[in-house]
Amino acid sequence: MKVNGEHYRTIWVKPDDECVIQAIDQRWLPHRFVIEDLQTVKQAAHAISEMHVRGAPLIGVTAAYGMYLAALAAREKSEPAFLKALQQAGQLLRSTRPTAVNLAWAVERQLQALLAAGGDAQARIQSTFDGAAAIADGEVENCRLIGEHGVELIEKLSRKKGGEPVNILTHCNAGWLACVDYGTATAPIYRAHERGLPVHVWVDETRPRNQGARMTAWELGQHGVAHTVVADNVGGHLMQHGLVDMVITGSDRTLYTGDVANKIGTYLKALAARDNQVPFYVALPSSTFDWEHSDGVAQIPIEEREAAEVKTISGLSEGEIRSVLLTPQESPAANFAFDVTPARLVTALITERGICPASEQGVLSLFPERVAI
Amino acid sequence: MKVNGEHYRTIWVKPDDECVIQAIDQRWLPHRFVIEDLQTVKQAAHAISEMHVRGAPLIGVTAAYGMYLAALAAREKSEPAFLKALQQAGQLLRSTRPTAVNLAWAVERQLQALLAAGGDAQARIQSTFDGAAAIADGEVENCRLIGEHGVELIEKLSRKKGGEPVNILTHCNAGWLACVDYGTATAPIYRAHERGLPVHVWVDETRPRNQGARMTAWELGQHGVAHTVVADNVGGHLMQHGLVDMVITGSDRTLYTGDVANKIGTYLKALAARDNQVPFYVALPSSTFDWEHSDGVAQIPIEEREAAEVKTISGLSEGEIRSVLLTPQESPAANFAFDVTPARLVTALITERGICPASEQGVLSLFPERVAI
Repeated sequence: MKVNGEHYRTIWVKPDDECVIQAIDQRWLPHRFVIEDLQTVKQAAHAISEMHVRGAPLIGVTAAYGMYLAALAAREKSEPAFLKALQQAGQLLRSTRPTAVNLAWAVERQLQALLAAGGDAQARIQSTFDGAAAIADGEVENCRLIGEHGVELIEKLSRKKGGEPVNILTHCNAGWLACVDYGTATAPIYRAHERGLPVHVWVDETRPRNQGARMTAWELGQHGVAHTVVADNVGGHLMQHGLVDMVITGSDRTLYTGDVANKIGTYLKALAARDNQVPFYVALPSSTFDWEHSDGVAQIPIEEREAAEVKTISGLSEGEIRSVLLTPQESPAANFAFDVTPARLVTALITERGICPASEQGVLSLFPERVAI
Repeated sequence: MKVNGEHYRTIWVKPDDECVIQAIDQRWLPHRFVIEDLQTVKQAAHAISEMHVRGAPLIGVTAAYGMYLAALAAREKSEPAFLKALQQAGQLLRSTRPTAVNLAWAVERQLQALLAAGGDAQARIQSTFDGAAAIADGEVENCRLIGEHGVELIEKLSRKKGGEPVNILTHCNAGWLACVDYGTATAPIYRAHERGLPVHVWVDETRPRNQGARMTAWELGQHGVAHTVVADNVGGHLMQHGLVDMVITGSDRTLYTGDVANKIGTYLKALAARDNQVPFYVALPSSTFDWEHSDGVAQIPIEEREAAEVKTISGLSEGEIRSVLLTPQESPAANFAFDVTPARLVTALITERGICPASEQGVLSLFPERVAI
């Protein structure tokens, strides 16, 4: 999508140096637009764990490129030593963010391709390079298709409103910054914008890390989409007063039963949506599905992050990015990163294959190959 | 309650100088504990309008003491000139926060008492002094009684949990800092703490003004009550996992039908509480009831405050209190200050008269004198 009028992806191979991966270091947004060089798997893992890059699809692609960087570094090793090094690299990458299912999937896919690539060092490197590029392009195509399917829902609401702007609430950043391009939750919004359908986005700031206020507001603004930032507390009030026509969020993991793990606070918006008959959609590529677990609240592990993310926040002050302490120094804080929205609160899932009810039957209707499993 | 081990109210007469009122200047909490001298009605009005003091009960008491300060300043005047000066003082005070119902009530009560006090200058001054003290003591007594009634609910849960800590979630600051002592939502918690019942409080940070992270966390910490600050997004997750035994919030206005206006985001917590069978209580003195309106969502006007409160936040950075920008400079923000929790989501109301269901019948059972109105 556009930044200062120019098209960007979130991660790419450095144009003049195939040994370097470049990514937007999102920690500095919206105040600075910083591009980071990733030259080792450690740097890739660090970029994931420290959230220079974030969002399930982008994490997966970064991990895939991390495997490529590990392969580059192990090029001189014997085949068993190479595979061992790559397995260790995979472990390192997987350990960075336990909730993100795409991460393990991307690592596994790279490892499988390596086993198939055989003994030639260059072939193995090429396999990880091509694998990462394919995962990146696949994510872009998935997001594009999510946009194509999801825009129909917006168009329907737009017709119902006689062309008045459709008000869409979103939580966190499931935008192109969380993916490679288009985004998941934002793909239908960008597609609507492209088609000239008037839309307005309520952007939940998404404490504690403020991905909404920082990322979503920034990317919508850069691309020219009308939006308003609100505190996370506001969505219920907006819905009570008819100011939200639909909710679209992304997902970090969605069970085949329709339970959705997403950024902490998503569940509260889903409750408000149900209480006010506002449709609540979750947009996700199929890589975000978890085919093993059936009960989200009971079975999905929820990452707990450090208290400092709650107790302090950073922003721009007199041209400097500064962190300020918000709480008493001595007060403890808890920082659960995700919550689970039960399937019963989700109107439908928007995937690259189409839109389906958030139920086992609904999901399997789009993924018939999974029925036998 | 306690600050650094010493007992404080939020406002008091200076011990060695009856012509000076002292109040905690809450703008600097939790980072600095500042006591401010109020020596004129202008200073009192400024303290209210600039939110050195906040919370409906405390605003009322500050206004009452403002009238006393005005009386002191007018002591040499003739009776008509004195009364005129006091009427002007009342107008000034009323203009500071036009929506605060306690403020107008306190000013009116002081003016009425003055008319009854007769012509003696000393008697008039004594009347405003005694009137302010009575309003302050009345607020304290109401809060104390809310604590006495509410602690029974905590005790019951404590017994059910075999003495394990009772986990209480609260939103915003309905603590002693918003009142004179004890607080409303916090009164049952402080009473439980006094009785030796183990309690732990989940403190919603309460964006955008962070009254939870700043005030509630500070006052609980100073008084020695176990607590944990969480982002406003977290409550639903906590309830899904059995980590909240009850919710207690305050209220800015509660209709006789049980609909509760309170800090923005309260409604979302009430939805989560219902979805997880967690009892949701609202603590309030009877002065907070609205006996005129019946439909909260339709009839209670919701204050919209400036976008800057959402886009920026202040905190401590290298010993300085600084404001930082959180969003893109260009992004608009909306700032609704309150929302309405429908009565159907409220388990019960805790008042100084006792506990009642959040319904017209329930409320009137505690306020039988209102039945005829």
